[in-house]
Amino acid sequence: MPTDPSLLAAAMDVPLVDHHVHGPLAHDVTRRELEMLLTESDREIPAGTTVFDSQVGFAVRQHCAPLLGLPAGASPEDYLARRSEHTAAQLAHIFLERAGVSDWVVDTGFGTDAIWSLERMDAELSGRTHEIVRLEALLEEVAAGASAADLQERFEAAVKHAAQHAAGWKSIIAYRYGFDFDPARPGACEIREAAQRWLGGRSSDAEDDVPLRVDDPVLLRWLLHVACDTGLPVQLHSGYGDPDLDLHRCDPLLLTNWLREVEHTGSSIMLLHCYPFHRHAGYLAQVFPHVYCDVGLGINYSGAACRQIVSESMELTPFSKLLFSSDAWGPPELHYLGSLLWRRATAAVMSEWVENGDWPAAEAARILRMVGRDNAVRVYGLEGVRAE
Amino acid sequence: MPTDPSLLAAAMDVPLVDHHVHGPLAHDVTRRELEMLLTESDREIPAGTTVFDSQVGFAVRQHCAPLLGLPAGASPEDYLARRSEHTAAQLAHIFLERAGVSDWVVDTGFGTDAIWSLERMDAELSGRTHEIVRLEALLEEVAAGASAADLQERFEAAVKHAAQHAAGWKSIIAYRYGFDFDPARPGACEIREAAQRWLGGRSSDAEDDVPLRVDDPVLLRWLLHVACDTGLPVQLHSGYGDPDLDLHRCDPLLLTNWLREVEHTGSSIMLLHCYPFHRHAGYLAQVFPHVYCDVGLGINYSGAACRQIVSESMELTPFSKLLFSSDAWGPPELHYLGSLLWRRATAAVMSEWVENGDWPAAEAARILRMVGRDNAVRVYGLEGVRAE
Amino acid sequence: MPTDPSLLAAAMDVPLVDHHVHGPLAHDVTRRELEMLLTESDREIPAGTTVFDSQVGFAVRQHCAPLLGLPAGASPEDYLARRSEHTAAQLAHIFLERAGVSDWVVDTGFGTDAIWSLERMDAELSGRTHEIVRLEALLEEVAAGASAADLQERFEAAVKHAAQHAAGWKSIIAYRYGFDFDPARPGACEIREAAQRWLGGRSSDAEDDVPLRVDDPVLLRWLLHVACDTGLPVQLHSGYGDPDLDLHRCDPLLLTNWLREVEHTGSSIMLLHCYPFHRHAGYLAQVFPHVYCDVGLGINYSGAACRQIVSESMELTPFSKLLFSSDAWGPPELHYLGSLLWRRATAAVMSEWVENGDWPAAEAARILRMVGRDNAVRVYGLEGVRAE
Repeated sequence: MPTDPSLLAAAMDVPLVDHHVHGPLAHDVTRRELEMLLTESDREIPAGTTVFDSQVGFAVRQHCAPLLGLPAGASPEDYLARRSEHTAAQLAHIFLERAGVSDWVVDTGFGTDAIWSLERMDAELSGRTHEIVRLEALLEEVAAGASAADLQERFEAAVKHAAQHAAGWKSIIAYRYGFDFDPARPGACEIREAAQRWLGGRSSDAEDDVPLRVDDPVLLRWLLHVACDTGLPVQLHSGYGDPDLDLHRCDPLLLTNWLREVEHTGSSIMLLHCYPFHRHAGYLAQVFPHVYCDVGLGINYSGAACRQIVSESMELTPFSKLLFSSDAWGPPELHYLGSLLWRRATAAVMSEWVENGDWPAAEAARILRMVGRDNAVRVYGLEGVRAE
Repeated sequence: MPTDPSLLAAAMDVPLVDHHVHGPLAHDVTRRELEMLLTESDREIPAGTTVFDSQVGFAVRQHCAPLLGLPAGASPEDYLARRSEHTAAQLAHIFLERAGVSDWVVDTGFGTDAIWSLERMDAELSGRTHEIVRLEALLEEVAAGASAADLQERFEAAVKHAAQHAAGWKSIIAYRYGFDFDPARPGACEIREAAQRWLGGRSSDAEDDVPLRVDDPVLLRWLLHVACDTGLPVQLHSGYGDPDLDLHRCDPLLLTNWLREVEHTGSSIMLLHCYPFHRHAGYLAQVFPHVYCDVGLGINYSGAACRQIVSESMELTPFSKLLFSSDAWGPPELHYLGSLLWRRATAAVMSEWVENGDWPAAEAARILRMVGRDNAVRVYGLEGVRAE
Repeated sequence: MPTDPSLLAAAMDVPLVDHHVHGPLAHDVTRRELEMLLTESDREIPAGTTVFDSQVGFAVRQHCAPLLGLPAGASPEDYLARRSEHTAAQLAHIFLERAGVSDWVVDTGFGTDAIWSLERMDAELSGRTHEIVRLEALLEEVAAGASAADLQERFEAAVKHAAQHAAGWKSIIAYRYGFDFDPARPGACEIREAAQRWLGGRSSDAEDDVPLRVDDPVLLRWLLHVACDTGLPVQLHSGYGDPDLDLHRCDPLLLTNWLREVEHTGSSIMLLHCYPFHRHAGYLAQVFPHVYCDVGLGINYSGAACRQIVSESMELTPFSKLLFSSDAWGPPELHYLGSLLWRRATAAVMSEWVENGDWPAAEAARILRMVGRDNAVRVYGLEGVRAE
């Protein structure tokens, strides 16, 4: 059935908080580069295929083409030709401003050379910015000048310092290890031994250029506990991502015991993406007061099929525990599509519930705004932040 | 598309067997208490949120309000005010009678002080009652007067005795341990040693008030085997429940080897709820002749979104192996909603299959009655039980 | 909403490649035998129930009855009576020709006495045939005349020989062990020791009639690596199947490390069926260039409910990585239904995406043909094979 027009209009009007996002591309890209950025795969596109033949590819053609003055459904060739008439900066402005986002909560810990910095987003976009500090990146930065003996002290000081400006933390333990880690907080000896294993292998001079990469489960889980000490929200990449991870080890249910461990800290745990385990995340969000979730990345990559995922994410999740994010990184189309697809899908799903007689008609717009904005404002404390 | 009106009418008319349910509240409750009973969480409601902003909360406002003379979609405040004009007994009568249930198959093993007893349900309601005996509660009762040496004999005698009146058994091994238990039947020595571990810790006098709680996996799985000896149906809580359980250890697929172990006994294994693993349960119900399933609890808590869950539960499950239950405990709204939401969702889903040309139109009402009533009558042998 | 008629017509016209199928029944069957072949269970049909009360049973009544001159929705009795007026050969011709399949890619390794051989399919049907060689069957055949010392050499020679005519390989490691096997290629010593364990138990004479059955995980995984050496596609039964398997050990995500191991070989890995883990398979197909998937068996057995499964299979899977198969074995109704249900469901799902404004209208028919035909032609190299 068609979405109720007034609910769709309300959905299009909500000033969203994109509570997990990265910067748009800073440089022009070729067709091949663009295709590589429109999939979670890091491998070459298989011969004879194109990323444009996927849900996200169709969404770009259908929904992004009109913003460049082309008809919906433009061919990949027409789209790319028109796209190349714009600079990267122009494209970022076109797509990000049309996303209707009032607050960008930005993870600054990945691929920073290729994309806009937080400062540039702040300066050039009408939306406000807030920083999410990536724990592993912070540790790797601190470790560059640390020894195994002082790593703990230095990192904990760095966290305290960053907590003064950060809106929250992000962990990629899903990528670096998996969620099947020991939930208990490691002691000082265990941390020092792990630091020794990690830093002991570091060469003294020649390889100074090779960046340190933490994948020790003791250190990774220690970061999580330190982050929770601050009481700030802690984001965890969950579920679907690139082929670095073992997806069956990224089911958020594997976090259950760790969630019990940190329940007392006051930190909110933000489960990001969660696909295809978003129903599992909804269960955790219902039974644990400090757990929140979104279906970020899963919306952009499922495109036309995302309505069902949005619906599933609203089965058990209390409406006060669900958030919106795009997880866009790079192509500014992703910032726009994340917003547009979420608005359209959420309005469509709620419209059907109202039409079926299962939802109070007057409430849909309120819940839509709650999920798209109010919950994030409350959890991250964005009200009054740099009020204009 | 709108549900076919004649199929919806047929759905509303089926005298249901609610094959897994508990009593309604015996006492008045405050708003806070009611909210705590409308979620599977046992934690305080997070500040700034309300359980009324959830699928089950919306279902109460939309579907229960009219039974109290309010318009559909009444505000939580109006609903609570009107609700408070009724006694707990009046509310139980209003909602349970309107559930259209001819047979309540009642698990009597949990929270008995707060809710109506089986006897009261039997005396005051028009539907018949049948008792499901909770295995862990029975063991804990027996253990109060037993030693490690005679626990096995006493429990097996208690089971034989209870089998004379029970309609079946219920196990909460999902809560107390998980489904990843050794499927083999434990021997007498193993049982005695486990009993020793369990009862040996019991203090002789001071703590007599502390109720015994069995969570030893040897004992828990022994109960299951003893229950199967009786040939009566054995219900297992599966999937979603409160935060006591580790949901990833409650996937019914983890029971596969145990299901093979007890296939010869003649007991039917009733997988309750199963969400979000209901597709897994449907597979088990198709390939194992003694396995049945429902999506009980998942319907009430997904509310407007439950159609999809009902549809998924009918993918692989043979129609003769699927049942209805509400798993209602406490607020009588849950007894009513379990019935209403199931009727509406099942009729809607079947209506769509008929409309699409995929189902014989004449069969939908028969299958609806089969799932809502006939399968339970056959499995629990309810035909002729206390025939009126 | 009703499916767009022109898209449905386009769907009905695609000459499909059924990339995983077996032969139709060679002999007449009784009602009981037919029912046993319309479920993945190998147990007796439970008393008081019939397989006709299931999604596949309803699909037979609704969609197959008209091909025998009966009205859609004919009763099981009428259907069986009319069916019995035809020989097995007549039924095979009626249903398989109406499936609209141009190319049958046939797994010849199971139950060959009861069904048509590849040669008969080739001779009597208008579609072309291509052989998929089942690895375990080939090993068991080779082992009959082999010793532990020469098993490796003999099997590897047999694979090289079969590769000259085979379109690909099939593994049933899901049934024989599970996907939680060591992903590393076993060495010659490990293979010889495993062969010794397996063949050493073989009696010298008396039991020569007992066929060898390989279930050693070392041997099973060795077969997979040998198959990948050929560069031909390797099919893996994944997910749902009969009660021999432990479904939770057949989640294709458990193959992740093995997929990394064989990525360099050039073989395409074809994940068959995958239900209820088809979203997991879609993730693997997106991130690994050599991974493909289908929802074969899940379509026939979910019948009217298969639209949702088809939709879910198109969330993450690039359209160039998804295929069609029926996995039909035996009753020719399954060959027909696999095709019909896939065509109807895919057209319905795509029609909705177009109607919602999320897909370019002009592209649906192209993607439908890509999934139903072109992808298989490309992966199996069917263009020009025995060109007519």
